[in-house]
Amino acid sequence: MSTRPTRTLEPVPNPHPDREYEVEIECPEFTALCPVTGQPDFATITFKYIPGPYIVELKSLKLYLWSFRDEGHFHEDVTNAILKDFVDFIKPRKLQVTGKFNVRGGIYTTVRAEYEEGQ
Amino acid sequence: MSTRPTRTLEPVPNPHPDREYEVEIECPEFTALCPVTGQPDFATITFKYIPGPYIVELKSLKLYLWSFRDEGHFHEDVTNAILKDFVDFIKPRKLQVTGKFNVRGGIYTTVRAEYEEGQ
Amino acid sequence: MSTRPTRTLEPVPNPHPDREYEVEIECPEFTALCPVTGQPDFATITFKYIPGPYIVELKSLKLYLWSFRDEGHFHEDVTNAILKDFVDFIKPRKLQVTGKFNVRGGIYTTVRAEYEEGQ
Amino acid sequence: MSTRPTRTLEPVPNPHPDREYEVEIECPEFTALCPVTGQPDFATITFKYIPGPYIVELKSLKLYLWSFRDEGHFHEDVTNAILKDFVDFIKPRKLQVTGKFNVRGGIYTTVRAEYEEGQ
Amino acid sequence: MSTRPTRTLEPVPNPHPDREYEVEIECPEFTALCPVTGQPDFATITFKYIPGPYIVELKSLKLYLWSFRDEGHFHEDVTNAILKDFVDFIKPRKLQVTGKFNVRGGIYTTVRAEYEEGQ
Amino acid sequence: MSTRPTRTLEPVPNPHPDREYEVEIECPEFTALCPVTGQPDFATITFKYIPGPYIVELKSLKLYLWSFRDEGHFHEDVTNAILKDFVDFIKPRKLQVTGKFNVRGGIYTTVRAEYEEGQ
Amino acid sequence: MSTRPTRTLEPVPNPHPDREYEVEIECPEFTALCPVTGQPDFATITFKYIPGPYIVELKSLKLYLWSFRDEGHFHEDVTNAILKDFVDFIKPRKLQVTGKFNVRGGIYTTVRAEYEEGQ
Amino acid sequence: MSTRPTRTLEPVPNPHPDREYEVEIECPEFTALCPVTGQPDFATITFKYIPGPYIVELKSLKLYLWSFRDEGHFHEDVTNAILKDFVDFIKPRKLQVTGKFNVRGGIYTTVRAEYEEGQ
Amino acid sequence: MSTRPTRTLEPVPNPHPDREYEVEIECPEFTALCPVTGQPDFATITFKYIPGPYIVELKSLKLYLWSFRDEGHFHEDVTNAILKDFVDFIKPRKLQVTGKFNVRGGIYTTVRAEYEEGQ
Amino acid sequence: MSTRPTRTLEPVPNPHPDREYEVEIECPEFTALCPVTGQPDFATITFKYIPGPYIVELKSLKLYLWSFRDEGHFHEDVTNAILKDFVDFIKPRKLQVTGKFNVRGGIYTTVRAEYEEGQ
Repeated sequence: MSTRPTRTLEPVPNPHPDREYEVEIECPEFTALCPVTGQPDFATITFKYIPGPYIVELKSLKLYLWSFRDEGHFHEDVTNAILKDFVDFIKPRKLQVTGKFNVRGGIYTTVRAEYEEGQ
Repeated sequence: MSTRPTRTLEPVPNPHPDREYEVEIECPEFTALCPVTGQPDFATITFKYIPGPYIVELKSLKLYLWSFRDEGHFHEDVTNAILKDFVDFIKPRKLQVTGKFNVRGGIYTTVRAEYEEGQ
Repeated sequence: MSTRPTRTLEPVPNPHPDREYEVEIECPEFTALCPVTGQPDFATITFKYIPGPYIVELKSLKLYLWSFRDEGHFHEDVTNAILKDFVDFIKPRKLQVTGKFNVRGGIYTTVRAEYEEGQ
Repeated sequence: MSTRPTRTLEPVPNPHPDREYEVEIECPEFTALCPVTGQPDFATITFKYIPGPYIVELKSLKLYLWSFRDEGHFHEDVTNAILKDFVDFIKPRKLQVTGKFNVRGGIYTTVRAEYEEGQ
Repeated sequence: MSTRPTRTLEPVPNPHPDREYEVEIECPEFTALCPVTGQPDFATITFKYIPGPYIVELKSLKLYLWSFRDEGHFHEDVTNAILKDFVDFIKPRKLQVTGKFNVRGGIYTTVRAEYEEGQ
Repeated sequence: MSTRPTRTLEPVPNPHPDREYEVEIECPEFTALCPVTGQPDFATITFKYIPGPYIVELKSLKLYLWSFRDEGHFHEDVTNAILKDFVDFIKPRKLQVTGKFNVRGGIYTTVRAEYEEGQ
Repeated sequence: MSTRPTRTLEPVPNPHPDREYEVEIECPEFTALCPVTGQPDFATITFKYIPGPYIVELKSLKLYLWSFRDEGHFHEDVTNAILKDFVDFIKPRKLQVTGKFNVRGGIYTTVRAEYEEGQ
Repeated sequence: MSTRPTRTLEPVPNPHPDREYEVEIECPEFTALCPVTGQPDFATITFKYIPGPYIVELKSLKLYLWSFRDEGHFHEDVTNAILKDFVDFIKPRKLQVTGKFNVRGGIYTTVRAEYEEGQ
Repeated sequence: MSTRPTRTLEPVPNPHPDREYEVEIECPEFTALCPVTGQPDFATITFKYIPGPYIVELKSLKLYLWSFRDEGHFHEDVTNAILKDFVDFIKPRKLQVTGKFNVRGGIYTTVRAEYEEGQ
Repeated sequence: MSTRPTRTLEPVPNPHPDREYEVEIECPEFTALCPVTGQPDFATITFKYIPGPYIVELKSLKLYLWSFRDEGHFHEDVTNAILKDFVDFIKPRKLQVTGKFNVRGGIYTTVRAEYEEGQ
């Protein structure tokens, strides 16, 4: 598992905490390094969540994703790590994180991890 | 939560109140202001509902959506506020409102809220 | 509810009445008038049904849809009216009628009505 | 119902009869005649099946579909007839046959029939 | 059933074995020979799996798929054989392998096989 | 050549008569009748013109196109007739009219006519 | 060169013989036989022409294309033969015929032949 | 011609004034009001230019386009007015401005104006 | 430049040698090896030619392209080599060969070479 | 103009220097920083060139583009700078470099620069 530097995601109070609704956030500009070759990797990271007490502040999300730019990460690991951070900071009722990585060696990889409160 | 000015949606009697059917209305020309920067935001608002006693009059819906043009609204909040107004005025059996907002800072946000009579 | 003129849909015997199968018929050339402004409206009408004793004769369906050309109809009403006629004449086990109307005032409307025998 | 000439589909032993798997075969080059006007009709025929003891030999399937070229067939009937032949010769556990016919008189027709072993 | 040469897929430890997540790997560059005519066949092979103790190392997967290049294989058989190998080496909780083969004789064939641990 | 009823297109003064610029107007809701069978025909009519002293008023263009609704017209003829009317009323420097007609009998027809001032 | 049976295309008087305009006719339902294997071939035949004294009557064009259904034709030859027939019967000022044939053996073939009056 | 308020576009020195190169800027979020009905209009404004001594500063372009938000403008006029402003402030060697307006009354309008230095 | 093994393309007499017409042949199933790494490369090879005395026999073209399967070739070189062979065997009046290679290292490469008789 | 660090592109001898042919290379994974805000920018850089004595070695091109990852660059400037470097190292007869940058502030920017030997 990758060593994770200190990152933060800023929670803001959910304006409609009484209602179950879904927020989907697509970020096509994720880039990190391949931990084996050091070469840049590119991905689209998508969050789909049902807010609990908080929603995520978008600028902090942008900064959060940029913080991976110079680090080495494996596809399967980084997608799960992002899921964990989002759960820790934003405490959603439900969350799905998808990492759709650019083709490498003629192969396209997508990783999809899910969290549900109380499971 | 945003302060909501007085807006109205005009209900017209449902011509087939005995039958459960679905109406989907897509409005790609929604615009409001960002409450933080004051800059224009753009979105497609989609309504999907099963009418109860009323259906929505389309011209009043158009005017309703225009009334947001010069106001500041957060994505998550305004989508839920529109849902509430539609429920108050049109009293549908079931309703889903989706706000698909234009990219900002390389990030695409979609908010989807739902209502069901008696829940 | 609109006053419906006398229209007919010609039933032909179902060649495989012992089997549940689905027929989907898409008609992108439906046009009627707006009952308020008198201006032409355009729609794609789609039928999806499981035949009972009959299937619909296609030429009679074409003539049936043409018969709306010079009449005023509201979107929600006409879609339900077409459903009723199809049920009366063809007696399907199950039927879904969808009317996807062309954009008006920047708004796209779709109406979807369903029928199931014995419900 | 159309009179069916003698046609055959060649079964070959299923190489993995112990496992439920799905085979989908799309044939966009089906043509027959309209039984009313004698004019050519065109369709894409798609088979989706879970093999039982056999899988279908593709060359025999091609010849089978060509054998309709000079015959008159109604859309609903021919799709069900093809389903029956496939069941008789290949004995699948489950089968769906879809006939998607080219537009005629501004109308697109699709027929979908299904078979399940033991039902 | 085809005679399978000795092939390997390299397992690497799953970095998040405590969590059910999905990995999808699409490989559009699969080629083998037709066992009847000796002519090249082309396919896109897609793996969708929930990892158990291991995830698959991508370079070994690429080499694995290349090893079919000079061998004759039937569509239905090779898709199931690849499923078996993946299960043997990577021991996933759940796996779906899809082989989408290029058109031959005007016919498109797709084979989809599934595995679930403990079934 | 079809007998043309009295139709009008309203010219409004070109706000920038000193400059050559292009206006393209696409009207996907044109319908007339087939002069042989009396059945409805549907087309998209597109105008591409360089204004001279006038530009066309859009509401009058809409009414102009609706006036064909109950008349019989051949594809080649009506496209040229529309070109002539536009030239008579709006006096463009250059004009291209395209009529893209819906499929009939498995055949798609497009007619494209052009005018240039002084030729 | 193939032996050509007697076929006809019906010319009708050009309603606007004084003007150069273009007619494009797309026919996606052409089928003939492969002269080597006897197997059906499928193509989309497109005509693009500037009419001279005549335009082509569409029903006769449909019948003309059907007349190839049971004959063997090579791609390059049949496209040129169709061009010659069209020139003989319709006497266009300019003509382009394109035959876009369905994939065979993993290969897609398109043939494009042109005629210009007086060349 | 519309009365134009005082607007500015900020020129920045062209970093490669010795070379002819092209810059294309697409702005899908333009909105103004209809000068007749007061209803919002929406358009995509695209600039394609060969810089002379300056290039346009993007933030000032964004503010420039926002300044139309509460004003009434005709399609043909506003596109030419934007062209003039760009020429006045940025002094390009060549410029094309395209306004692609959203559908109104079933009609799509696009206006394209051009400027070339010394003409 | 690569050492070229003995390959052949079979010419057949042009059935319409008196007329300039174009033949386009798209072959999406080309594969060779990378001369540096030995790994498979994939490409779509497209021929666009105006026949002289001959046209190419399609089966021989398929075999010709297969003959590269086990050889190492650079993108720029192999595209030009194929052009030369086609000119030598088929003697076209004009020829364009395009090799569109699959992505490698995040980079897509296309090579386009042309020949014209007498230049 | 940006200060350019020392970068290199490796030339390899053109295998067919006697012939004019075109090479197109698309690189969708370019990223640099905004020189004003320090935020990451993303672009697709495309090279289209007619080789002179050399062609570009692809691995060196990949490394060349990566070298911009941590530097600040303006869109117009970096596109021209890349053009200059390619000309210096590879000495093409003709070259076009296009930088298509991701949306920022609702605005899409594309820069296209060209070089031709002897001009």
